[in-house]
Amino acid sequence: MRWSRALIPTMKETPSEAEAKSHVLLLRAGMIRKLGSGTYSYLPLGQRVLNKIVAVVREEMDRAGALEILMPALWPAEVMAESGRLDVFGEDLFRFKDRHGREGVLAPTHEEVVTALVRDNVSSYRQLPLNLYQIQTKFRDEVRPRFGPLRTREFIMKDAYSFHLDQESLEETYEGMYRAYCRIFDRCGLDYVVVEAESGAMGGGRSQEFMVPSAIGDDLYVQCAGCGYAANLARAEVAAPPPARLKGDPELKVVDTPGATTIERVSKLLGVKPEQMIKTLIYRADGRPVAALVRGDHELNESKLARALRAEGVELADTPTIESVTSAPVGFAGPVRLEGVEIIADHAVMGIENGVTGANQADAHMIGVVPGRDFRADRIEDIRTAVDGDPCPKCRKATKLSHGIEVGHVFQLGTKYSKALGATCLDGDGRPRPYVMGCYGIGVNRIAAAVVERFADESGIVWPPAIAPYEVVVIPLDMSEQRIVMAAETAYTTLLDAGMDVILDDRSERPGVKFHDADLIGFPLRVVVGKGFLKTGQLELQLRRDASKVLLGHAELAEKVQAVLAELRAPIGQATDTGASQTGP
Amino acid sequence: MRWSRALIPTMKETPSEAEAKSHVLLLRAGMIRKLGSGTYSYLPLGQRVLNKIVAVVREEMDRAGALEILMPALWPAEVMAESGRLDVFGEDLFRFKDRHGREGVLAPTHEEVVTALVRDNVSSYRQLPLNLYQIQTKFRDEVRPRFGPLRTREFIMKDAYSFHLDQESLEETYEGMYRAYCRIFDRCGLDYVVVEAESGAMGGGRSQEFMVPSAIGDDLYVQCAGCGYAANLARAEVAAPPPARLKGDPELKVVDTPGATTIERVSKLLGVKPEQMIKTLIYRADGRPVAALVRGDHELNESKLARALRAEGVELADTPTIESVTSAPVGFAGPVRLEGVEIIADHAVMGIENGVTGANQADAHMIGVVPGRDFRADRIEDIRTAVDGDPCPKCRKATKLSHGIEVGHVFQLGTKYSKALGATCLDGDGRPRPYVMGCYGIGVNRIAAAVVERFADESGIVWPPAIAPYEVVVIPLDMSEQRIVMAAETAYTTLLDAGMDVILDDRSERPGVKFHDADLIGFPLRVVVGKGFLKTGQLELQLRRDASKVLLGHAELAEKVQAVLAELRAPIGQATDTGASQTGP
Repeated sequence: MRWSRALIPTMKETPSEAEAKSHVLLLRAGMIRKLGSGTYSYLPLGQRVLNKIVAVVREEMDRAGALEILMPALWPAEVMAESGRLDVFGEDLFRFKDRHGREGVLAPTHEEVVTALVRDNVSSYRQLPLNLYQIQTKFRDEVRPRFGPLRTREFIMKDAYSFHLDQESLEETYEGMYRAYCRIFDRCGLDYVVVEAESGAMGGGRSQEFMVPSAIGDDLYVQCAGCGYAANLARAEVAAPPPARLKGDPELKVVDTPGATTIERVSKLLGVKPEQMIKTLIYRADGRPVAALVRGDHELNESKLARALRAEGVELADTPTIESVTSAPVGFAGPVRLEGVEIIADHAVMGIENGVTGANQADAHMIGVVPGRDFRADRIEDIRTAVDGDPCPKCRKATKLSHGIEVGHVFQLGTKYSKALGATCLDGDGRPRPYVMGCYGIGVNRIAAAVVERFADESGIVWPPAIAPYEVVVIPLDMSEQRIVMAAETAYTTLLDAGMDVILDDRSERPGVKFHDADLIGFPLRVVVGKGFLKTGQLELQLRRDASKVLLGHAELAEKVQAVLAELRAPIGQATDTGASQTGP
Repeated sequence: MRWSRALIPTMKETPSEAEAKSHVLLLRAGMIRKLGSGTYSYLPLGQRVLNKIVAVVREEMDRAGALEILMPALWPAEVMAESGRLDVFGEDLFRFKDRHGREGVLAPTHEEVVTALVRDNVSSYRQLPLNLYQIQTKFRDEVRPRFGPLRTREFIMKDAYSFHLDQESLEETYEGMYRAYCRIFDRCGLDYVVVEAESGAMGGGRSQEFMVPSAIGDDLYVQCAGCGYAANLARAEVAAPPPARLKGDPELKVVDTPGATTIERVSKLLGVKPEQMIKTLIYRADGRPVAALVRGDHELNESKLARALRAEGVELADTPTIESVTSAPVGFAGPVRLEGVEIIADHAVMGIENGVTGANQADAHMIGVVPGRDFRADRIEDIRTAVDGDPCPKCRKATKLSHGIEVGHVFQLGTKYSKALGATCLDGDGRPRPYVMGCYGIGVNRIAAAVVERFADESGIVWPPAIAPYEVVVIPLDMSEQRIVMAAETAYTTLLDAGMDVILDDRSERPGVKFHDADLIGFPLRVVVGKGFLKTGQLELQLRRDASKVLLGHAELAEKVQAVLAELRAPIGQATDTGASQTGP
């Protein structure tokens, strides 16, 4: 490609609309443009990156034995009503009425359609396992699309769904997909952390997310440098502390706390630290009320609560329930003398020496509360959200809390959808059994953005060769000097003939502009033909990643460029010092 | 691929939902499944066909110098309001409100966005010509989706848009795209007719459609076997007849025709043939009223009328206008003594010897009308829609009216969108000029359906090798005979190693089932390993297209299969006797 024929509208200024580094750079490098809220056009260089990512994803899916299909984005709303997900997605779903007044939705993901497809077209276990994938555009009405292509309302997703007769077969495919995901991210040059994730209720098994460490990532995960344990925040376990031996014997007293219904206000009013307080939350778990206790400085984790209670769903109780359970207005619940309701306490609550909690009466709290002495919990479990520095559940070393960009997710769905849609398969004995399912997602646009976010420097993007818009840029520094132009043309043709992906910067621009744009866009390699060439006949091969340079003659060009590209393709996960580890399933 | 691992749910019965042959066969061959009205899932074999078509299209677009981009499907409604196309598309547009109550549309085509993209990112004529394409999913709320994947509400389209400083440059790119389209359809094995099409108002120039002849095609076109002239119905010219020399001199009389407001009723009432009647239609052309005359058995062609009047738009006048122009209720207009309005007559009207027309008074018509004697037309032009047998405008031979499936369209847009969106470019003198634009569309799914429609036989589909789901199927006829299984496995591996696209039918099915499915799906070639192999050690190579067979040894297999495939890839346009010709621009 010749630069003059490509559409590469680089920008000098930092666009005001962009916050994230990747967003700024993709705009400045002329790779994307915004259309509306959370929707982007990909200009030629951006589209080349997407196409390369898609090619890697497709190759690895095929290699993993998945079959490519394509399902519609436009669904009759009934399809989603059947699984109950119209409500689950709620406002995230784009909904419309067609010309005949029939309700439709834009699919945010394809569990229902693929399950029905398999239900209607597969009958015997002999056809299993079956793993179907598509690379297709998804639509989600995000509350707040942001960071450019990282969180949008329209995006390309590779979603795969596998179907099995039993858990064992699912595990096998799941592991294969896990390895395929690792290869995909390795080939795209990304480093990542695989974290345990929440699998939800209804027969779901293992679930893992692929996180790219990034300060602007929307997802939080906990990681242990000691043993490699990593989990997202919904899932991260906290090691149970050793049983507390409380020393003091404070006096239990009721004190007035008029209008103080929050941890913050009570703590201020009474001059106690939040970590001394026992937060008492009334929940409904599958309908029945439960009192859940966490330390005032901790947050209750609903996923953990549900798991601990083996409940399909938990939700905060409404005001009448709270008032009936505690005999007090909302904001004054406490475990002391709380009766007729199961009490579940987080481990950390049991270590409070001299606690404060609601008195189950209006405008009053109790002080001098000692867990065990003043109240008993029916169950003591890990029900709080992890915080930075919490002990690792595996090795008890301190864990670290980090932000990450989720680029992939593998998920053992179990029988949730097959049961809801009546999708069964005849087993070896001719008996119908609901499919055991897995699902596997990758965000294509997000990989591109994550790569930029992760590997850019102050001059611009640093693309890994496998997904760079072009692998090599050839830069003649003086277009008015015929010998330089000719040498650059020759180098360009040589590299093209060697099967490389090359762009020739044939613009009549100053060297500074050319270097600046090449750095900004981030081609992994550049071949510079400048004044030096006129003297020595040598070309300069420059590496974007570390700006290292080497001089070489034309004859060795193709071979050398091939060699350097091969070197650059070594998986980043092992090659860099980002500190991110990879954990296996 | 092994058949047992692929998902190929062939069906024995003809599904009741399907009318068109292509629809029936794609369903029966297990390539597509319906989700909702006008939306289809593509199963693995169907998706392979789509991927192959996409690859051909992408390769030819790149070769033609077009740059691939990707624009969103989800648009803020304002984008379309700006160009006035919210109204043009009307109910064909899917419209929705997002969670913030903002109006959005699903893009049916991308003129607005691409024009704004170029307006905002290109400034100099030095960057022209610029040709941008995408392969992307479009959404249109068709009134009546039908014939399976031929007319759907969601489909993959390759749309390209070119930008130029002047018409000359547009012509050059247009011609290049025309040639690229011919290569695409040739490679996909389609025969086609290129027809002149309507380009519409506002600076539009040439426009051509690529039609695949088919009785179920929604589009009608006229074709001359003599000189090759071909045009769609909106555009097809009718050669002007020689000036009429009217012989009789009938008496002009007013007769009562109470309540007879249609050609049919008047013709019945008065016992005259429709071709004797002069249909008088009151139109508004860019606002001003016009009386347009066509013969009673002809249809007025609005595109032609607009072109003849050099009007941007024409529409039937409303009742008050008609009543004011004719001084009569609707249904009794006639050209005799019609004053204060321009009269434009179709050529054929002037050849009526003894005509009947409205009397411009309620419940009355005139008989004995002689054009020229009783009224004068201000203009005599070709303003009717062509009919089968009309004389060719080039060579006057009788033309033929045929149905076709439109698979592609190249279109000189002119400055319609660039003017509407203020998209200008600085010319060599630094003066801003609106871009002269072209646009070019191809329906990817429709190519697949058209190929099936065109080349299926009573046994099933006959895929051209370039877009067949697999080029070759290897069929072991007896899975219980180890030597047959081994030979089939060897043949399969040999062909895979030679880079061919092969599927091995490893099912334990009867030979009849395997042959039936292979025919139904339509793999171009099959390699059969049967009883004969046990005796002679020879494989049977069978051609799907003509069922011809040849025996061969294993050693010659790869070479022979390559040779046959190469032969099959010869463009169908020249190779078959479909009678369809290809016309150049």
